[in-house]
Amino acid sequence: MVKIAVIFYSGYGHTEKLANAVMSGVESVHETTPHLIAIDDEGNISEENWQRLDEADAIIFGSPTYMGSVAWQFKKIADTSSKRWFNQDWKDKIAAGFTNSASMNGDKLSTINYMFTLAMQHSMIWVGTGIMPANSTKAQRNDLNYLGAFSGLLAQSPSDAPPDIAPPKGDLETAKLFGERVAEVCKQWNHVHNS
Amino acid sequence: MVKIAVIFYSGYGHTEKLANAVMSGVESVHETTPHLIAIDDEGNISEENWQRLDEADAIIFGSPTYMGSVAWQFKKIADTSSKRWFNQDWKDKIAAGFTNSASMNGDKLSTINYMFTLAMQHSMIWVGTGIMPANSTKAQRNDLNYLGAFSGLLAQSPSDAPPDIAPPKGDLETAKLFGERVAEVCKQWNHVHNS
Amino acid sequence: MVKIAVIFYSGYGHTEKLANAVMSGVESVHETTPHLIAIDDEGNISEENWQRLDEADAIIFGSPTYMGSVAWQFKKIADTSSKRWFNQDWKDKIAAGFTNSASMNGDKLSTINYMFTLAMQHSMIWVGTGIMPANSTKAQRNDLNYLGAFSGLLAQSPSDAPPDIAPPKGDLETAKLFGERVAEVCKQWNHVHNS
Amino acid sequence: MVKIAVIFYSGYGHTEKLANAVMSGVESVHETTPHLIAIDDEGNISEENWQRLDEADAIIFGSPTYMGSVAWQFKKIADTSSKRWFNQDWKDKIAAGFTNSASMNGDKLSTINYMFTLAMQHSMIWVGTGIMPANSTKAQRNDLNYLGAFSGLLAQSPSDAPPDIAPPKGDLETAKLFGERVAEVCKQWNHVHNS
Repeated sequence: MVKIAVIFYSGYGHTEKLANAVMSGVESVHETTPHLIAIDDEGNISEENWQRLDEADAIIFGSPTYMGSVAWQFKKIADTSSKRWFNQDWKDKIAAGFTNSASMNGDKLSTINYMFTLAMQHSMIWVGTGIMPANSTKAQRNDLNYLGAFSGLLAQSPSDAPPDIAPPKGDLETAKLFGERVAEVCKQWNHVHNS
Repeated sequence: MVKIAVIFYSGYGHTEKLANAVMSGVESVHETTPHLIAIDDEGNISEENWQRLDEADAIIFGSPTYMGSVAWQFKKIADTSSKRWFNQDWKDKIAAGFTNSASMNGDKLSTINYMFTLAMQHSMIWVGTGIMPANSTKAQRNDLNYLGAFSGLLAQSPSDAPPDIAPPKGDLETAKLFGERVAEVCKQWNHVHNS
Repeated sequence: MVKIAVIFYSGYGHTEKLANAVMSGVESVHETTPHLIAIDDEGNISEENWQRLDEADAIIFGSPTYMGSVAWQFKKIADTSSKRWFNQDWKDKIAAGFTNSASMNGDKLSTINYMFTLAMQHSMIWVGTGIMPANSTKAQRNDLNYLGAFSGLLAQSPSDAPPDIAPPKGDLETAKLFGERVAEVCKQWNHVHNS
Repeated sequence: MVKIAVIFYSGYGHTEKLANAVMSGVESVHETTPHLIAIDDEGNISEENWQRLDEADAIIFGSPTYMGSVAWQFKKIADTSSKRWFNQDWKDKIAAGFTNSASMNGDKLSTINYMFTLAMQHSMIWVGTGIMPANSTKAQRNDLNYLGAFSGLLAQSPSDAPPDIAPPKGDLETAKLFGERVAEVCKQWNHVHNS
């Protein structure tokens, strides 16, 4: 069994929905034990959840893109992880990241690049989406990887759309596929085979 | 009068179309002398065009996003500019950038961030789009700044769409507005007033 | 007169020292009114200081590099600035940034790139250091721009050096020069001439 | 056995020296077959070398940082890899990167971030240095990871130092350790054990 933690902050529920989709992808892979960890509005998680991060074989980071990068609550967790960094406790864990924002492009890549930088300081090993984009003239909004995301999973929710309708179905399906990929990579890395 | 150079590489014509739209925005502003400079397929421009860059008050950089950054032909021009860098010949010129790629998001921000880094080595002063994004549920593909671009101008052309139909009208109108903004900023910086 | 605000977070005093050096550069330029604003440990500033940011002609951002980007307290200020972003209240202000961390390189550029992204969302105009690096075999630690910083001002303080001895003199002098440059650019942009 | 390709461009010999150091690290690990591939001054490699990249289990990218990113010759190889990208031929290979430039900091991180973006488009899996930085007051220039590099391997050669004396010994030893790490990660990923 491999342990996979999805840790995220969600301000209005869209990133939570995305986190759940990633989780469903992780869960669809045999021999995985997923944990979903929500960062609270003050940028904290419980001691028990810090322990789950420490024990995880893979950590998937999630945050909305606010003002061009991760939410401050996510950054507070990142800053708090500095003791783990000092001891390199998370070394060689698998890492990946996802984000949601209102614009098609926006600065979502800035958010993913930050998560990557964080993971590299922890000496983790980074895996991206592994999904080719849907970008021909026939492409539809609900196609897999319509946004064209490589380094991490990107989703888009219109600025006035509540989380019961956004991100759209296609982004959530892409998120599920992304969760599957991270889980499979984590298993191969840890030499865990499907039964 | 302020002199504004738009230097770009275009592989298939989409970025050229975008460059023309940026030019039309520059031209719509009084007291500007625009120059359009196309980088050839070997990554070269004429000596006369190097001189135009040297004399420009603003340089707007354009390139498709290929494999996650500027085309190599654009990078060759950037590398060749190292003598100007050594002498800081372009110091205090206004700088800005634009790019086109097939996906809505893709790694377009990586391309703009590179152009910014290049401009900063030259001690130029960077201006972005200054246009708010169209990202509500009512947003249409041809709205201004539908992609949600801040640091530089982003456009999207489907992978199989020829340049006579892509980038779409809205992206070209956004590019025109962006050209206007760079020209106006260049004029204010150089204390040139509309007649 | 131009109003120039330096807003920073400092965890242990090194970035504060750097902020003071930047301030001294700003102050050395005639016709400037500088304001120094310290972000508190909870990521807040007073209403009066928000007003000073709103009234400023230039805002210089400062933060240590913690875990690969700005401190969460700085990011909280950035997130709180979203109302200003929505109204584009800071449009066309001059922007610049500085950071300090323990390593020579580290991920300092990631911090500056984030500050740039933030400024671009606010439609501000970005200015870098404009100082050539000292990087020949004869270069000494206290030379101007020994680290080789372009997009923003970088300083380095050894992990165990208290702020009374770090960052070193050369980095502080570079910071002063950087403050001067931002002030001069702000004056030219606002058509304010030395008396 | 795992096959590990180191592909690099070197303008003046410093990056080549770094590539050799990375190679020596790879070679020190049992059960590896290393290949060193030099990109020529026109940005080309032989068909045989393209085949070696296709067959490799890990690809380590190397380039000097010129004008804020990889040399154009390296970018030309990246652009030429677009057919492999289209077929996702390099999917799930291990990837890593290294760079050299004259300044301590400079824009080296921009170069590594580009190599990462390239690797992500190819759906490769990224590994960084995994080495803690030497950044206390006692740190010496020839300590391991004196520059403080995480996402990729960074080296520094003074602008006027020929490759027989630069990068310095400590950077080369760090590069060797980095090569070892990539090889070990590649072996674990491919379930190859030391004999």
